[in-house]
Amino acid sequence: MTLVVSNEDLERVLPMDDALAVLEDLYRDYGEGRAVSGPRVDVVAASSTPDGQRAHYGLKTMAGVFPRAEVGAIRLNSDLVTWPVQDGLKRRVKVPAAPGGRWCGLVLLFSTRTGEPLMICPDGYLQRTRVAAANGLGARYLARPDAKYVGLLGTGWQAEGQLLAFCTVRPIERVRVYSPNADHCETFASQMSKRLGIPVQAVGSPAAAMADADIVAAATNTLDPVLRAEWLRPGVHGSAIKVQEVGIDLLRRCDRVAFHTLKNVKQHTVAPEAEQANPEQEHGWWQERPADLWERLVDLGQLASGQAPGRASPDEITFFMNNIGMGLQFAAVGARAYERARAAGLGHDLPTDWFTETVHP
Amino acid sequence: MTLVVSNEDLERVLPMDDALAVLEDLYRDYGEGRAVSGPRVDVVAASSTPDGQRAHYGLKTMAGVFPRAEVGAIRLNSDLVTWPVQDGLKRRVKVPAAPGGRWCGLVLLFSTRTGEPLMICPDGYLQRTRVAAANGLGARYLARPDAKYVGLLGTGWQAEGQLLAFCTVRPIERVRVYSPNADHCETFASQMSKRLGIPVQAVGSPAAAMADADIVAAATNTLDPVLRAEWLRPGVHGSAIKVQEVGIDLLRRCDRVAFHTLKNVKQHTVAPEAEQANPEQEHGWWQERPADLWERLVDLGQLASGQAPGRASPDEITFFMNNIGMGLQFAAVGARAYERARAAGLGHDLPTDWFTETVHP
Repeated sequence: MTLVVSNEDLERVLPMDDALAVLEDLYRDYGEGRAVSGPRVDVVAASSTPDGQRAHYGLKTMAGVFPRAEVGAIRLNSDLVTWPVQDGLKRRVKVPAAPGGRWCGLVLLFSTRTGEPLMICPDGYLQRTRVAAANGLGARYLARPDAKYVGLLGTGWQAEGQLLAFCTVRPIERVRVYSPNADHCETFASQMSKRLGIPVQAVGSPAAAMADADIVAAATNTLDPVLRAEWLRPGVHGSAIKVQEVGIDLLRRCDRVAFHTLKNVKQHTVAPEAEQANPEQEHGWWQERPADLWERLVDLGQLASGQAPGRASPDEITFFMNNIGMGLQFAAVGARAYERARAAGLGHDLPTDWFTETVHP
Repeated sequence: MTLVVSNEDLERVLPMDDALAVLEDLYRDYGEGRAVSGPRVDVVAASSTPDGQRAHYGLKTMAGVFPRAEVGAIRLNSDLVTWPVQDGLKRRVKVPAAPGGRWCGLVLLFSTRTGEPLMICPDGYLQRTRVAAANGLGARYLARPDAKYVGLLGTGWQAEGQLLAFCTVRPIERVRVYSPNADHCETFASQMSKRLGIPVQAVGSPAAAMADADIVAAATNTLDPVLRAEWLRPGVHGSAIKVQEVGIDLLRRCDRVAFHTLKNVKQHTVAPEAEQANPEQEHGWWQERPADLWERLVDLGQLASGQAPGRASPDEITFFMNNIGMGLQFAAVGARAYERARAAGLGHDLPTDWFTETVHP
């Protein structure tokens, strides 16, 4: 049988510490060439939202194979993307245009022993968990062992995951969080205080969030930089979930910079009409890849497998940039989640025959 | 609701002439830049078959967006690949190791208006149909209008599709077919004679199949060339479903050569251990891309959109090479099949909510 599970099912069975453990195994194997991840591929054409806004339709895929867990995974997204300006910053916002006002992202998990599809699930919980755990592992290798204060920009679903991960790898005692939407910010602070059992305080400016912080983090949907170089005091660890959150000046100020992966590339195949209207073209330093930064970058696979050292002194300024995701991450968290969901009897069982065939493909 | 349909359902609703019609629209749009196809991506690691043979596990994806039909499609394969030598030729054979001795390949169809998953189905019938229809369109533009004799190598599932396509685009009166397995060959000839209503004759050698043929075709699983340059008499049209079926000498003998696509590339990300053991490395001329051939190639998009002319005289030797598939093809045949399967009430309806989510992915 092939298991169909929901984000809620997955959240029940895959806590953050478990995700961190399987992903640490994964990055070790990846660093040593025993796990394989393909490029992220976006196929993009012009479209419009149900209420007539200009949008791009994007079909995104990423795949990876994790032999240790005997699985391969494909993560895919079927997105209507818009770029509204909110609070003075250009955002990347996907429109929930599917029936019921929903988004569409999926993970498909396969057995490398039989080829069969083991599990099909929405990508949301696994997606957030792998992003959070990657930045959590970045903090495990790079933040000061005694880091206790977190400053955070962003109060969305990803921001929640980032805090869960930081609190798992470091003895965090207090969080200050800023969002341009004060109501969101208060709600987030209140909910996360309860969940984490430590003070999470909503503050009125980004600078106020960052004062005294040992970990300076962003988890936003911005397309313009939000983290500032001047917030990086000696000893601080910085953390971002996308390249657009930081400028090159900030990265140049760091003593040690790790990216999620240096191997994978992102590939866009864009219809000419959509290409002309694409506001995501200009990535600045990310496109230019300045040698003074690139030649000293390491990645999470190198850190996890011991090929690159982590923090070397209390005063270093370190940074972890979740530059691009890997399909491989979904193989690791997917395999563990599948095993746990099966054991817990969650989800819907569908005949595997519906997703396999009698003819040589 | 999201529709799950079988290969048998799809075969009932998507006949070859219909597939040729929607794919001709597709290639016109593709040639004019209004339809988009991403690269084919293979992620490969070492594995083994259930009975202990050395194998590769490969997770393959290809995606495309066809705005005219308001759909995007992803085709994926989860394969255990082996390379046995049969009848003196190296073959690429996928092992049916999924429960019930089955293979795993899937097509997922999405709406570009809402992002929602419209249909999930095995890839087999759509895969064969799009391969056959591409070569069929190649014959429509390149074979002599009065072509009536077909010589065919191969008697598998793909060979059947090729004959259906040739007989749809040209007034074929007789087929001669060769396979090293004489029993397969007789069975195939007998079944196809009935199905097509014309003589399909099993013959004892490749040369016997090709004598007098107006269309010289291969539809095999070989990794070594099987079509020979000397079979290309003036006026003949040649047709192959993969680059390994022909040598460069054959293509140099042709006056006009079209490839399926010149835009798409195939990308392998292979684990180091698997890389060393990969017998599919040496593609010869396909890797070298000799300029004397490459500079005169055209593709099906150019032929369909009138940017490149088809056959110009009765004596030309022409060739159509289905060099690599495109995810985009699955969007076109998938959209039509979905519409017809819905109208016919076929398949299983699953809640679309199982494959969508309430969180921003």
